[in-house]
This record gives sequence, C-alpha cells and structure tokens, in this order.
Amino acid sequence: MNENKGFVTIPSDSSFVEGTKEIASLWGADAIRDCDGTELPQNPHALAKYVYKTYFVSRGDNKWASEHPEDCLRCFLPTEEMTCLTDGDLCFDMQKGYLKDQIVADYENLSYWQVFDRTTGEEIKDFDVDEKNGTLTIHHPVLYHVYNVDFMAKVLWHPVQIYNYLTNHWTSEKEKCYDLAYPECFAYAKKHLKEWCENNPEVDVVRFTTFLYQFLLVFNEKGKEKFVDWFGYGMAASPALLEGFKKEYGYAMKAEDFVRHGTMNTPFLPPNQKTKDYMDYVSKLVCSRAKELVDIVHQAGKKAMMFLGDDWIGSEPYGPYFASIGLDAVVGSVGGGVTVRMLSEIPGVKVHEGRLLPYFFPDTFHPGNEEAAVQELRSNWSRAAGAMMRAPLDRVGFGGYLSLAASFPKFVEEAKKVCDDFRIIKSACSSGKPYCVCKVGVLNAWGKIRSWMAHMVAHELWYQSLYSYYGVYECLSGLPVEVEFLNFDDLKAGRLDCDVLLNVGDRGSAWSGGDIWGEEEVQKIVRKFVAEGHGLLGVGEPSALEKGDGHLFRLADVLGVDEEIGFTLSQDKYNIHPVSHFITDGLEGKLDFGEGANNVYALEGSDVLSIKMSPLCHRNVNVGQVQAAANTYGNGRAVYFSGLPYSVDNARCLYRALLWACQKDQDILRAYCPDPEIDVHYYPSASLYGVMNHSLEEKEVTFYDIHQNQKNVVVPKQGIAWVKDL
Amino acid sequence: MNENKGFVTIPSDSSFVEGTKEIASLWGADAIRDCDGTELPQNPHALAKYVYKTYFVSRGDNKWASEHPEDCLRCFLPTEEMTCLTDGDLCFDMQKGYLKDQIVADYENLSYWQVFDRTTGEEIKDFDVDEKNGTLTIHHPVLYHVYNVDFMAKVLWHPVQIYNYLTNHWTSEKEKCYDLAYPECFAYAKKHLKEWCENNPEVDVVRFTTFLYQFLLVFNEKGKEKFVDWFGYGMAASPALLEGFKKEYGYAMKAEDFVRHGTMNTPFLPPNQKTKDYMDYVSKLVCSRAKELVDIVHQAGKKAMMFLGDDWIGSEPYGPYFASIGLDAVVGSVGGGVTVRMLSEIPGVKVHEGRLLPYFFPDTFHPGNEEAAVQELRSNWSRAAGAMMRAPLDRVGFGGYLSLAASFPKFVEEAKKVCDDFRIIKSACSSGKPYCVCKVGVLNAWGKIRSWMAHMVAHELWYQSLYSYYGVYECLSGLPVEVEFLNFDDLKAGRLDCDVLLNVGDRGSAWSGGDIWGEEEVQKIVRKFVAEGHGLLGVGEPSALEKGDGHLFRLADVLGVDEEIGFTLSQDKYNIHPVSHFITDGLEGKLDFGEGANNVYALEGSDVLSIKMSPLCHRNVNVGQVQAAANTYGNGRAVYFSGLPYSVDNARCLYRALLWACQKDQDILRAYCPDPEIDVHYYPSASLYGVMNHSLEEKEVTFYDIHQNQKNVVVPKQGIAWVKDL
Repeated sequence: MNENKGFVTIPSDSSFVEGTKEIASLWGADAIRDCDGTELPQNPHALAKYVYKTYFVSRGDNKWASEHPEDCLRCFLPTEEMTCLTDGDLCFDMQKGYLKDQIVADYENLSYWQVFDRTTGEEIKDFDVDEKNGTLTIHHPVLYHVYNVDFMAKVLWHPVQIYNYLTNHWTSEKEKCYDLAYPECFAYAKKHLKEWCENNPEVDVVRFTTFLYQFLLVFNEKGKEKFVDWFGYGMAASPALLEGFKKEYGYAMKAEDFVRHGTMNTPFLPPNQKTKDYMDYVSKLVCSRAKELVDIVHQAGKKAMMFLGDDWIGSEPYGPYFASIGLDAVVGSVGGGVTVRMLSEIPGVKVHEGRLLPYFFPDTFHPGNEEAAVQELRSNWSRAAGAMMRAPLDRVGFGGYLSLAASFPKFVEEAKKVCDDFRIIKSACSSGKPYCVCKVGVLNAWGKIRSWMAHMVAHELWYQSLYSYYGVYECLSGLPVEVEFLNFDDLKAGRLDCDVLLNVGDRGSAWSGGDIWGEEEVQKIVRKFVAEGHGLLGVGEPSALEKGDGHLFRLADVLGVDEEIGFTLSQDKYNIHPVSHFITDGLEGKLDFGEGANNVYALEGSDVLSIKMSPLCHRNVNVGQVQAAANTYGNGRAVYFSGLPYSVDNARCLYRALLWACQKDQDILRAYCPDPEIDVHYYPSASLYGVMNHSLEEKEVTFYDIHQNQKNVVVPKQGIAWVKDL
Repeated sequence: MNENKGFVTIPSDSSFVEGTKEIASLWGADAIRDCDGTELPQNPHALAKYVYKTYFVSRGDNKWASEHPEDCLRCFLPTEEMTCLTDGDLCFDMQKGYLKDQIVADYENLSYWQVFDRTTGEEIKDFDVDEKNGTLTIHHPVLYHVYNVDFMAKVLWHPVQIYNYLTNHWTSEKEKCYDLAYPECFAYAKKHLKEWCENNPEVDVVRFTTFLYQFLLVFNEKGKEKFVDWFGYGMAASPALLEGFKKEYGYAMKAEDFVRHGTMNTPFLPPNQKTKDYMDYVSKLVCSRAKELVDIVHQAGKKAMMFLGDDWIGSEPYGPYFASIGLDAVVGSVGGGVTVRMLSEIPGVKVHEGRLLPYFFPDTFHPGNEEAAVQELRSNWSRAAGAMMRAPLDRVGFGGYLSLAASFPKFVEEAKKVCDDFRIIKSACSSGKPYCVCKVGVLNAWGKIRSWMAHMVAHELWYQSLYSYYGVYECLSGLPVEVEFLNFDDLKAGRLDCDVLLNVGDRGSAWSGGDIWGEEEVQKIVRKFVAEGHGLLGVGEPSALEKGDGHLFRLADVLGVDEEIGFTLSQDKYNIHPVSHFITDGLEGKLDFGEGANNVYALEGSDVLSIKMSPLCHRNVNVGQVQAAANTYGNGRAVYFSGLPYSVDNARCLYRALLWACQKDQDILRAYCPDPEIDVHYYPSASLYGVMNHSLEEKEVTFYDIHQNQKNVVVPKQGIAWVKDL
C-alpha cells in the first residue's frame, strides 16, 4: 500500500502558494481546487498534478441574465394564509414574507397562478391582480374561510449566494440565475463553457456547481431562510418546463402540485404519480443538457466533475438518466457515514470524491479553536471511515481557505493521518468486496432514487422523529451488510433479493410508506417474505395506516407490536416484561431509542426487549411504551425498534437485530469484536481485517476472525489497525 | 349551619352493631347501608334514620337463571386474529383467550356471527362451525391474509362478581346474569322485586346495583381482565335487543358494529350514527324498564337509588330518558373533582350521593397502614371538596367493612372532619349558585351525554395522553367557571351559549372531534365565535384532521399553532422564544404539560408561553416543541396547551387562560388568592367566601374579595376557612 501519496484534493489560493506546496506534500495531495471566494495560483501544476476549477452553469453571468430577463429561474410559492374575518375583499401583499432581492411575483405569467379557499380546498377564480401595488385581491370571499395564493415567482438572486452573503458576510455582486430549459439560454451556456475551457487551459477538472436547478431555498423578508428542501423541485418550475412537460405527458402540472398547501411537496410525502412524472421529465432534460455540457468539457480535453448540491436538482444520481451525462467524477460533502455511502455508491461515474469537514472557514478556524477543529475532523472521520470501509470513496478533499488550516499545526498533523488512513482503506477495499453477512432492503415509497437520502433534511432542521430514524441509516452505513433501497413497485414486481426488509418512519410519511399499506398485495408480499424465512425490521411506525381501524400497524401480526392511538385502550396489555435476548445481549442499559414512536405495545407471543415504564400508573398492566421487541412469524422473524439514533451501541444492536432477523445469529462471532466501540471489517480477497476503534482511547482488544478464532490487536483511538490473515 | 348531623351514609354489618352506633354518632351519619359481603344488623333503624339495601336486578338469582338459559346476558366478542400462513383451512378455537366460566360462544345464535378477512375488510361466508369441538373453520382462506371472527357469546358469570372473586378473593356462589329485555325475564324481575320489598320492610332505600346491562368487562383464560370499557354497550347485545332495534330503526346492528376490529367501539372513536341510534334504543328500553322497577319500589313506600356503575349501561344519566325513571337518588364513587361533578350535576334526580375513598377493605385497612389510609382520605377529599364547592353533592358516604375503619382511630377522626366539612360546603352552596366568572363549553363528538366523562377510562388504564388531557377536566372541576358539554350538533344548531370553547384530545379521537373538522361549517362556526370576541382553548391536538394537508390543526389560524407531522419540515420556524404573559404569570417553572401533543410549533404572530427546547440541535430555529401559546384572532383570543395534567399550578394556569381567552383578565383579582394552593369560592347570596387550602400546611393568607379588596385568613391544611362578607 502506498499510504502517503495521491487521491487527495486541497483548496489553494493565489496568496498562499508556498503553504500549499508544503501541505500538499505532507498530506500527499495530488489535486488543488479553487473555492468560493478564492483564486487559483498562477502556474497551478507546479503545486499538484490535477487542477480543479469551479464552474457555474446557471448563475453568475449577470450581463447575460440582465439582457434575457425572460429566461430567469422561477418557482411556485404560497402567500401567507389569510382568514376572511370581515365582509369585503381580501387583499394579499404578494411580497409579504419574501426577500425582495430574491423573490418577486411573476406578473407576466398570471395564467399559472392559483388561488385557493383552503377551508374547502376549492380553487377560486374571482380575483384581480394589481401589479403596480403588488397585490392580489379576492372578491366576495366567504366569511371565516381561509385563503391563499400559489403564485409563480421570479428568482432574482442565486439562493446559495444569498446563503453565503448572510452566513459568511459576502459582499460581492449579487449573482442572477437563469433557466437552461430555454433553448437560447442553453445555447449561450454552451458557448460560454466552450470559451471558458479555451480561456482556462491550466484547468484539468471542471467542477460543475452545478447544472440547471437549485434545490428549493427561499428567504424571508428579514433575509432568513424560509423554505429549504434539499430534494425539492420547487425551483424547477419555469413556463419552459411546464409547457414541455404538458406536451410530453398530456397533462399540466399546476402551481398547487408544487405548493401542496405549504408542504412544498416535501419528499416526506409519499410521491404521487404527478410528482414522479415531473421528476422524470425534469431529470431527463437536466441530464441531456448536462451531457452536452460535459461533452464540451471532454472535447476540450478536460474531465468533468459534478458537485452534489446547490443546483443539483434533476441530476438524480440514483435515477435512470444520470449515467448518460458521462461525468468523470462526482464530489460532495461528507457529514458522516450516510453521506459517504450516498456519494460512494452513485452508479455511472468512476470517481467519487468526498469533501471532509470541517470546512476551512473562520467560523471554525479562529484563534483558540484548534482543539475543537481537530476534534471535529476526528469525530467526522471516525463515522465516515466506518462507512468507507464498506464502500470507499475514490478521493477525499477539503474546502475553504488553506491558510487558515495551516495556522493550526495540530490540525495539519491530524489531517495528514486522515489522508493516510483514507488511502489505506481505499487500498484494502480495492482487493474486492468486504465480507457481508446479509443483504438489507430498505423499503420506502421512494426506493433506489433516494438511496441513502431517506429522512435527510437540509440544514439539519430539528424534528424529534428525524434523528430517531436517520440514525438507523447512519448505523447501517458502517455495518458488514449489503444495503439496497427498494420502493413498493420493486416489491410488487418481485424485486426482493434481500434477507431483511427494513421499514422506518412515521405513519403517513413516504418513509414508512403511507396509504400503500392499505393495499392487500403489499401486505401479502411482506407477510410471505417473512413467513418463508426472511426478516422484517420495523422502526417507528412501520406499515402504519391511519384509519386502519383496530391496528395502526398493518403488519402488527408480523411485527408482534402495534401502537395504541387511543382506540384500543379497552384492551388490557400484559406483555410488558422485558426478556433477555440475543439482540440486546451485552448492550443492556446502553441503548437509546430516541423519540420515534410512542405508546407501542407488544402483542401476546412476541418478546419485549426494552420498555419504558410509566411512573404514573400503579397497575401492572398497560403501563409501558415498548422500545424494542422481537417476534417469530412462520419460518421468519421480525424485530421492532421505536427509534434508533446513531451511537456505537445502537449500531451494534442494529447489527445483532439484522442477524437475528435473517437467522444468521450463529454467525455473530465471524469478523466481530464484542466491544461495541470496535468494528471489524474483513476483506476476503486480501485476507485482511480492518479493526476500527471508535473510542477516544487506544484499545488492546481481542476480536474474532472469519473462522471464529480469536486474535489480539492494539488499535489507536478513533483509528484503524490492519491485521493480515496468514 | 348544622355541621354535625346528617347527609352521611356508612356501611354496617350485623357483627358490628355497637361500633356502628359510635361512629354514626361521631360522623353524624343518618343512613346505614349493607355492602358486598356484609349483612345489615337486626333492627337497623336503631342505628340510623335511613336504611339502604343493595338490590341486584339482572344477576344473582341462579335458580331462575338456570331454568331460563335462553335469557342469559350476551355480548359480541372477537376471536384472536390469525394469519393464513400455510395452504388449507384456518381453524379458530372459540374459547381461546376467554375465561370459560364467564364466556362461551353462543352456537344457538350463529346467524349473528361474522367472519372477516381483516386484510381486505371483507366479510367471509365460507366457514363451518363445530360446536362439539368449539371451533370455527374458514375454508379456502387466502394465503397471508389475516382473519378473525366476531361471535355472539353467552355471559355466564357476572363480570363484577368475577372482579371481586379475583381482586378480593371471594368464594361465594358464582352469580349468573340475565337479560331483562326478554319480557318473561322482566316480568319475573318485577315479581321478584315486589316480593323483595315485602320481605324487607326495614329497608327505606333500595340501592339498585344496577339495572339491565353491565359495562363491558371480559376476562381472559387466566382470569385476568381482557376488555374493559366503562361506557361500552358490548354486553347489551342479546337477540332480543338486536331484533327490537331492527324493528324500530329499520336496519340491523351487526357483530362488527360492536367489535369494530377489536376497538370494541370505544368512546374514543367518534360515535357513528349506528352507535348513536343503538344507544338511544337501548337507553330508551333500559329507562322504561327501570321506571317500572322504581314504581314498584315507590308503591312499597320506599325510595329508589341507583348506583352509577356496574350494570349502569343504558341508564345514561345525562341522556334524554334518565329523568323518566323517577329515581330518588343516585350514588357513585368519588375519585376526585371530575367524578364529583359527573355525579352532582346529573339532572332529573333529587339526591346525589358520593361514596368517598378509601373503601374500607383490607387492601388499605391492614395493620401499620393507618397513615396511608388517612392520607388517601385527605388527598381525595381535597380534590373532591374543590369540586363540591362549585357543585355540591347532597350526601356522602363510605363503603366496605366499618369495623376495619374503626380500628384506625386517626382515620375515624379525619373522617369526622371530612363529614363536617362536607355539611358546611353543602350549607354554603344551598344559599345559591357560587360566583362564576365565565362559562366554558367543552366541545367534543359526544357532548352532554358524556358530561364529565371525556377521557375517562375504566381502571385507570395508562396512556400518556390520557393523564395529560383528563387533567384538564380535573382542573376545571374546581374552578369558578360554569361548565357545559357540547357536541358538534349543538355547535351547528347554534347552541353556543358560552364564553370559551374548549377542545381537548388527540387527533382522530371523539374528544378532539375527528373527521368532522373537515366540515367547512364546523370550522366556520368556531372561527366566527372567536373572531366575534369569544375564546378558544385547545389542548393536545384540537381541531386536528389527518390528511388535512398543510395543517394538522384545521383551526391553526385561530390557535396560532400547528403540529409538525413531518410534512412542513421544509418551513423554517422562528417563533420559538417564550414571552411573559398574563396566563403564566407567577407560575413560571411550576407548570407540567404532560405528554399530550408533540412537535407543536407556533405560527408567526402568536405568543409562545412555554416551549421545550431540544438539546440536540445547534441552530436557533425549529428547535422546540411548543407547550403553551396564546393568540389574538379578530376580536377574540385563543390559548393552546400541549397537555395539562392535574396540579394546583396547572389548575391556576387553566383559570388564567380561560379568563384571558374571554377577555375577563381584568377580573382576575375578584375572589382570588395569588397563591395557587389557595382557591377562593364566593357565594353571593350568602355573602360568604370559602377559602380552600390544598397544601399540607396551615397557611395564613391574604386573598382578594369580590370587590378586589384584600382580606386575611388562616386556613387549615387541606381544609377550608369560611369568611363572611360583612
């Protein structure tokens, strides 16, 4: 293994040439990149083999944008809701609640606007728009009904730049954005890119940031974030797109299809057919446009890299058109194990690069904060590395101002270790697939297209069931199991090539599945799957169907648990005593079940593994909330958790649960360390064990190899020991 | 006031005559009663003016029951659910899960049985019943579908006697029960009662325990409680009733109308029209039968008293037929303020008697437990007394074995104080209605017929939102406000004669209202009510409508809050900073919002009064769960609590919230003590203040009289001081 050189990208800056050289040498960096707010040095190849440069496709050319206002980016947005409290007209201020530098109502496209009586759900036609005053007036509203307007808006300022203005106090020119769905706009973009390639001969890799459509990111009148959805197609809604879609699909997408009563059609809603059709249409267009751009880059003898973020909407890395773009590389930010897997498993592209945290910005790199910076790097790396040992990235990198990082010598030293560790992991994995004990199918309404993206929310908006469910994927990302994401169409089509099905989420959401659990076929397929000898693992409110009558969980019989929502209080529940079990063995008292489902109770015959008892009730019945349970069903098994935030103990518990569910519990001592802080990854082709220590202390441990023989090894804190099987 | 004599009932026993005399004299008891398991003494009028004796109408005459098995009590019950996991028939053991001494399948009435495919909801006809083996076999079940059977069962043993067998280790003869819907059974019951009256000349008051139908109470094969519903009509389901109903209403009630997929048609489900019709039919029959029985009692020169419990189903004290029974008295158990009000406000009967706790049974009255017995009496009384000061009972009493109580001298002393306090309260209230600052309308799907019965669950089955919501009524029971229970028909009919509407409960339940919140008219009426200057107080998930799209709370605009259920995570929420407010003034840090609704957030413009912040999120947005909020709406106001368990501080908070909601906050200092442990009740006709101290310490306090003048008084611990306004 050459652990010292290559596969690492660092930012550089024309004012930090010598420093770049030193750090490049120390970290073994073979690529430099520019960064928002920095310029590459002259003669960059003196610093590294590869030179990346950021390229904006649909923003930044303000001159062209000003000359073609008709091609600007658009979105559908809701006005505030107003209740008619007095007789007379109801007047909406179209600017209210929006940052006027970013959002203005598009009065040239009134035909797309929709006005709703939200009390009845009816669309209202009796209204007038006054462009001069920026108002919309509903005539003859009904007293005590609630109204609002879905309007088309022009996006005048690029949302990510606004974010940087506000977060990082930028003051450069406000970049306009434009829509490459318009042929003349696209033609210009191609021309611009060609010229740019010619004018940037020193650049090897064009780092597209990104293609056509920004994820939904809207600011309020105070310049604060108002709507954010990392998956939202809300800003891919221009007349060009809408008319193109109508032509191809034979029906129109309307404003309300984007707004959906203020939900902005969040991915938490089970996607309806319209949503799926529109995503398909946009994504086909985006990928075909992106392909033409990438072709230009290739013709110029350069490589094309896509940034997974910003204007990434429609690229859909796990969708059917992504590979056709012909990208050489994709790069994204690494926030933990899930983001590693989301990046590293993208099909149809050779190089997957992860940008590690922390970003070299003054919020972290300010005097006196070195320890914190080091700790952030180590703890992020510890989670990321576990996932990479399952499915490695091809490259890692950093972002921000390198000079800031360079001023923290300890950080520089730690980053060197991270780069070296990364190269060893990459090398180990290059020998072939790591040992997987079983295959897990994550079942939700999205499936493959949202691989590793379930329960992901931009900017980590807090929600108690979010961390409780997202943790399941974070745990999963570092386990020796194969993972596949499935939707209900896959299920119905019999694409069920896995050992354990995983269904995680709140009732009604896309993640648990929603109304589809009312379908007899869907229930039947899962029952058959389990009864025939496979496993089901449910977290939160799996298979939940509101108005399902007696059971909230439609698969209560399989799971052995159900949730009390008030309608079965007349039934006494006696199965409230936790039992010892393989799944929780050695983890008693260490597990954290978060804040997912409440009031879950065990049916007779299932095993309660953990239950939160109520201190308020004096009777030995109905008093607890089940947090973990296990059940046998036909020839198969099911496991339930009310929630499972990420922790090393929870990850271990999930592993044991998966093994138990697919009846491979007898294989637990293969490539395994009983200490939950120690993970063992085995690479059969290389006869190699990677022993990862998640703790903050060096540990001398005994682990079991693939033959269940004991081996001893010393593992550095938050580091890896490699053991060759002789 | 004569505080020493009368209005108190004690149990007596032939083996405790002298002791009865002493205690009767000490407590001022004017009535003695027998009790389950005791016999009245000879010559009972030597002990008290009035003699009560328990009379069972529909149980206990085993000879008659054995001779008329066709008239036995019946109910509809579900078998366990079974999933078809292998090819071939599915066979149900009809006895499985039921105590065979209580429940046997009624094979003579197979026509009422229903078999269901619970996966599709379809009724199945392809089955056979084998009475000999006690089985039902479904032919050709579909693989992986779930099935079960709603069967008619005979109730062979009276459920309350089973309860006493199991709880109190009784061993007397197992009492059978019979159904007075059958004319010959009813004729016999009348004859029996006539004879009984003749044979019991010393009895003044016939204490009916109770009339025709037991509340749902079913035991499992281990003799443990299986289903319990204090309001359930499940045991009022004989062929006589079903055929009578069909004849009168023109349609049939089926097994599934009672079972409803295992919910047993709980009152937590919004009642459908069938449920309402059937309750009406049964209750008409019960009240007419009860009237004939009461007439017999009156003809014998005795008084008739009904026990509110046991076979009380169909009597419906707040229903339209109850008064027609012509009862002299009703008696029930007092467990706190709510049960006092539930009893004391029953219309159509002159005397309301409350049986205080603890019951004189060995579970409490055993050696060494005197302090605990005293404390249970005092704390129950403290809550009960507060409610009585608003709406007093006419009598109080005790139950159990008097000799046990007599062996605890401190308890005897405390009980004397309680009896004296009760007589003073009764006297104070007799002068006229106490001062009420406003009128509260509790709005739910049941309304008046379940007055003070909302969120009441038999045997205190635990449920986290139960205690969080029931507490609202417990708080309300002792506040100087008038209370009325309304349903949505009242709302629609304009019967909205109150200052504040109160809507409390979980989404989908009868208590918050359920699907009716989808009705435009209902929303509109409440909006108008508030906007015109009244108040709305919501607790938990008020006005919640699942699938209501963007808002879970349909009246989010009025309440100023809504609940995040995952679909509006893309919206940033900034209204997270609590403000000082009239409602929580002086109560900061003392309030407990229980475990009702989670993830409630405040809309812009409303005032957050309390918010539970998440320690897990680092951004100053979307991080909290609102527990209390206040909003202005048109000319009115709304208040929200996520839950409100009972405590003196919460009761005070509710009072302040109600005053604020109906804009009488300026009246706060009328008949008021700033100390939440001190309640002031004012009786205008008597110019009298009753100052109640809920604390465990004597207090010297300053309170405000009705003119907002300060008065000083010393109040005993958990006691009352009376202050005359001169």
